[in-house]
Amino acid sequence: MPGIEKLPLEETLEDSPQTRSLLGVFEEDTAAISNYCTQLYQAMQRIYDAQNELSAATHLTSRLLKEYDKQRFPLGGDDEVMSSTLQQFAKVIDELSSCHAVLSTQLADAMMFPISQFKERDLKAKTDFLLLTDHDTAINRYSRLSKRRDNDKVRAEVVEDVYTSRKKQHQTMLHYFCALNTLQYKKKTALLEPLLGYMQAQISFFKLGSENLTQQWEDFLGTIGTSVQK
Amino acid sequence: MPGIEKLPLEETLEDSPQTRSLLGVFEEDTAAISNYCTQLYQAMQRIYDAQNELSAATHLTSRLLKEYDKQRFPLGGDDEVMSSTLQQFAKVIDELSSCHAVLSTQLADAMMFPISQFKERDLKAKTDFLLLTDHDTAINRYSRLSKRRDNDKVRAEVVEDVYTSRKKQHQTMLHYFCALNTLQYKKKTALLEPLLGYMQAQISFFKLGSENLTQQWEDFLGTIGTSVQK
Repeated sequence: MPGIEKLPLEETLEDSPQTRSLLGVFEEDTAAISNYCTQLYQAMQRIYDAQNELSAATHLTSRLLKEYDKQRFPLGGDDEVMSSTLQQFAKVIDELSSCHAVLSTQLADAMMFPISQFKERDLKAKTDFLLLTDHDTAINRYSRLSKRRDNDKVRAEVVEDVYTSRKKQHQTMLHYFCALNTLQYKKKTALLEPLLGYMQAQISFFKLGSENLTQQWEDFLGTIGTSVQK
Repeated sequence: MPGIEKLPLEETLEDSPQTRSLLGVFEEDTAAISNYCTQLYQAMQRIYDAQNELSAATHLTSRLLKEYDKQRFPLGGDDEVMSSTLQQFAKVIDELSSCHAVLSTQLADAMMFPISQFKERDLKAKTDFLLLTDHDTAINRYSRLSKRRDNDKVRAEVVEDVYTSRKKQHQTMLHYFCALNTLQYKKKTALLEPLLGYMQAQISFFKLGSENLTQQWEDFLGTIGTSVQK
């Protein structure tokens, strides 16, 4: 993919003001993506929850209609026509609830899964950077050292500390730069993939609905309409 | 409609044990219908609420995508292809949210309205019967009266009381019998009407979705798929 900006990994050891400034731009961009993606994630979670609730409520309605026969109605409870009509309603509404359940599963796999992964895995990388403060502490100790007359043992310890923390910082920055670069590579896909998944799931749902259900339902409703008018 | 049982209105003045017993059967049936309808009402309310939430969440997602252009992304925020792709997603998801909104409205009018009316208007008629206790109190006073020596004024008052309360009871029973008979006439329609409304709304939704959206979406997804792979 062309036009994607990169943090230069070779600059991580130097830690120059220019690199720090470029890092700042990347961090700002990451914060903006993170904020936007979190909003989109929440909206998609709402869609997914509502779809699940719709599926469950539709299933419950179908189950209630199936249970009509088990109710004890002292008057006219043995009405065959009413009973079989409600059983047919139960059946078609159950089929619709199956379509809803398929849609829920597809939304889970093709929409929620990729956006959750991106949110949990790629957007969380930035918190690792907090480790860098270790190095700042070591540098501080080292700079105070030169002004005082300390013994060789303390001096050797502080130098060792600076070396260790600088090595640690270098590794952390390498990871961090990699994570921020990866985010730049992934950010478009991260937005588009769940949207594509959402659309595909909706198209399948409408196809399933219109091909398998609509004609069957219309015939059924025609029959009911006539028998209710009688 | 044949086979519908009726409480005899001409028996309301007599208030015989036979009528009371028949009334008991009607009351039991009414309680069973009331219980069943309330469960169905709650399930339908859940469907309706979930559908509204789905509609709102879909609309929110579309709005977020429209707002992508307004975000400040320091890196690659001026990407024309990404921007126009998300605008197209916003457009088709907005169309879907309109379909959801139409479905919500149809469910409100054709499902929730009739079942709410039946629940609020017809099933509540039974509570009126509580008034009858007035008459029992008057009869009680009258029966205690004959055992004591009271003056004519008190006797006349009590007799007047019995007359008034009996008249009131007769009227109340007439209303009550009518209400219970009406319920028997309406109970089948009360169950079938919201179900028919629900089915019609779902059929319209699938038609609207498959006719107006599916083909358009598939073309769009084809284009997106190609440009994302590039």
